[in-house]
Amino acid sequence: MNMEYLSGVSTKEIFEISQLLAPEMESREVKVNGAVHTIRDMGDVAFVVLRKREGLLQCVYEEGKVMFPLSDIKEGTTMEVTGTVRAEERAPQGIEICMTEIKILSQPAAPMPLAISKWKMNTSLEARLNMRAIDLRNIRERAKFKIQEGIVRGFREFLYSQGFTEIRTPKIGARGAEGGANVFKLDYFHRPAVLAQSPQFYKQMMVGVYDRVFETAPVFRAEKHNTKRHLNEYTSLDFEMGYIDSFLDICAMETGFLQYTMKFLQEHYEKELKILDVTLPDTEKIPMVRFDKAKEMVSEKYDRKIKNPYDLEPEEEALIGQLFKEEYGADFVFVTHYPSKKRPFYAMDDPEDTRFTLSFDLLFHGMEITTGGQRIHDYHMLTQKIAARGMTEEGMEAYLDAFKHGMPPHGGLGIGLERLTMKLLGEDNVRETTMFPRDLSRLEP
Amino acid sequence: MNMEYLSGVSTKEIFEISQLLAPEMESREVKVNGAVHTIRDMGDVAFVVLRKREGLLQCVYEEGKVMFPLSDIKEGTTMEVTGTVRAEERAPQGIEICMTEIKILSQPAAPMPLAISKWKMNTSLEARLNMRAIDLRNIRERAKFKIQEGIVRGFREFLYSQGFTEIRTPKIGARGAEGGANVFKLDYFHRPAVLAQSPQFYKQMMVGVYDRVFETAPVFRAEKHNTKRHLNEYTSLDFEMGYIDSFLDICAMETGFLQYTMKFLQEHYEKELKILDVTLPDTEKIPMVRFDKAKEMVSEKYDRKIKNPYDLEPEEEALIGQLFKEEYGADFVFVTHYPSKKRPFYAMDDPEDTRFTLSFDLLFHGMEITTGGQRIHDYHMLTQKIAARGMTEEGMEAYLDAFKHGMPPHGGLGIGLERLTMKLLGEDNVRETTMFPRDLSRLEP
Repeated sequence: MNMEYLSGVSTKEIFEISQLLAPEMESREVKVNGAVHTIRDMGDVAFVVLRKREGLLQCVYEEGKVMFPLSDIKEGTTMEVTGTVRAEERAPQGIEICMTEIKILSQPAAPMPLAISKWKMNTSLEARLNMRAIDLRNIRERAKFKIQEGIVRGFREFLYSQGFTEIRTPKIGARGAEGGANVFKLDYFHRPAVLAQSPQFYKQMMVGVYDRVFETAPVFRAEKHNTKRHLNEYTSLDFEMGYIDSFLDICAMETGFLQYTMKFLQEHYEKELKILDVTLPDTEKIPMVRFDKAKEMVSEKYDRKIKNPYDLEPEEEALIGQLFKEEYGADFVFVTHYPSKKRPFYAMDDPEDTRFTLSFDLLFHGMEITTGGQRIHDYHMLTQKIAARGMTEEGMEAYLDAFKHGMPPHGGLGIGLERLTMKLLGEDNVRETTMFPRDLSRLEP
Repeated sequence: MNMEYLSGVSTKEIFEISQLLAPEMESREVKVNGAVHTIRDMGDVAFVVLRKREGLLQCVYEEGKVMFPLSDIKEGTTMEVTGTVRAEERAPQGIEICMTEIKILSQPAAPMPLAISKWKMNTSLEARLNMRAIDLRNIRERAKFKIQEGIVRGFREFLYSQGFTEIRTPKIGARGAEGGANVFKLDYFHRPAVLAQSPQFYKQMMVGVYDRVFETAPVFRAEKHNTKRHLNEYTSLDFEMGYIDSFLDICAMETGFLQYTMKFLQEHYEKELKILDVTLPDTEKIPMVRFDKAKEMVSEKYDRKIKNPYDLEPEEEALIGQLFKEEYGADFVFVTHYPSKKRPFYAMDDPEDTRFTLSFDLLFHGMEITTGGQRIHDYHMLTQKIAARGMTEEGMEAYLDAFKHGMPPHGGLGIGLERLTMKLLGEDNVRETTMFPRDLSRLEP
């Protein structure tokens, strides 16, 4: 039998924008493809701008040079264009294609419902989210999620370089890691089950295996918050590391991640940073302040009464951000030693004052984007704290077994990806930086 | 105020194995840390083997040279060791540490319940899964998931290099992509919701935005299969690409991924491949055969009657794998043109014979690890097929809108990560290559 074989990706005669930009391409006849982003008909000449994955490409329709009527093309048409490359400094990439022939690949069935070819979308967020697959065809909107991709890549690459192992932990389980009522419940073959609020238990267990682990995966929180910063499903960038000397090792690792990632974005996502006019934050040195001290500082500077010494209100968070920006020029601040009451049972209490924990939040322009800290690693200390809190060990047997059979001192953190992206891009609603958000009222698309 | 700052990861005086292997380290006094993997007490001398993230490290306890009793150390103790490096060809890395001092970091509360220091675990899979956090401390078991990490890294790196964008799509939705009864149902703030069976709709929608997209994320299938190859939650490596000439572009891209990844594993996971004694499969050229032709070949060669010309039984899959190994020396085979009845509505039918689709499965040693193909990109063709199948468009409005407003010809695939890992490692149960499996009876740990 005459067998056919696949032997890998073959080069096509279709050109991408980065290839077209090479100086030797000038005046060459090429084929390109893309979706018609916009058409500007000037009479004798029309500019047909193609949307391609690398950006926009201007194609010129000149009467007499082409073998097809302009009416063949609409916004949303996808096509293959044959034409000649020429320099044109007013065009998006400094080049344009002088069209001769086209091959229509597909035609839209209806006119575009959103003005996606505008530089900025001037439609309400709600309407844009309803038509998200169309909305994201806007050049600025789609750039946001390229930046988000870059953040995740930076996270992974940095942690690989630091000896971390990437893990994959289950999202369906018998009970939630954090306890409490904020879990989504589901029916698992007639057994009650929940969706993971965080990979907390699993990543701790895996510290006993790989010393340093991370995961970038969805988490689910059935919180009834309806705010600009809450989502019911989001991406958590989690890591957990063993053999730490203190929780400061975790803060240092996060600082390293931020430094690496800002450089990574600068190098690999320069185009998108420019499209969105982003100024990257300063990550060279990040100040650190105790929880109680931060409350005092805010109270003093902004003449604000401390209502509850064991809680931090969103307004206080914002003011801490403001204060550290004003006084120290800082974009980020680590707030440390959160009250024990406000932290889960597995948080390590400060031996010097057990009302507080060896934990921290990282604020970015006054919003919490990370919660982390040192965990209890001693089996007896852990079971005592569970008992002291009136909790049950039921359903936590496997978690506790990891400690029973030896666990190094360790700690870790979870970073909300959409919030980090939101703050980086200067957006004020986390839905702007979530591809398909899930909130109290939104389950589609 | 005297502000404290974090300025990134600082170097510690603790050495990792790769650092200790440098020739200039010989005879140097160093500090190392790790968990006690095993202790061999020979009387005058004892070998204390530490488990570290990079491997095992032999430490030697010699009476007279140490300042602590051997009884301080148990299997599962984590500690910091001070000692001198010396070459020892019989030790795991060709070096050992001659201990002088130790600092105990943590002690286990109970003896190890599994013989994790044995080369191969000789405990039942069921028992190992019940104590997974301990089981994975075994060197061979943990190596499996390093290889799995490598596969995912290979997938991502290859696709980035091919102009793909990584996306994150929601796992909770109003309806399933594939339809049917195999969805997990949950209560979403008193509204019915389901867990994503695949990112199918979302990745197709995003082709209209980025041309080429991929996702590596969990998917959920409420299938009541209780087999060695089914999981109810698994990791799907998905990609979708626009502007294809035919479904063969998808097969070529997958072949490219496999070629890249095998090289990547060889380069970056050589240690783990050696631990698990893995021979990487041949990916240079992958044969391709039509579904109907494959059935005929198997029927002929193994003298087997074709029961159903439109279905492929697992036994037939296995025999196709066997046939292609025997006749063509092939580890993989693309089986193409699956019957339309067996494919979802969005599959593109073959215009030359609409009983079949422009789709494929990839078999690896006789097991399906990938399903993919060209999709319908024309809005009218899509709605007609939905109608012809007696399906409703309800809940698919956003999906269909993407087509209504223009979509290029496209296709994609989904790869079952755990199955690919299983076949690569020569395992016979997919639970062996799933960190924390979820099946009909297993919801914990």
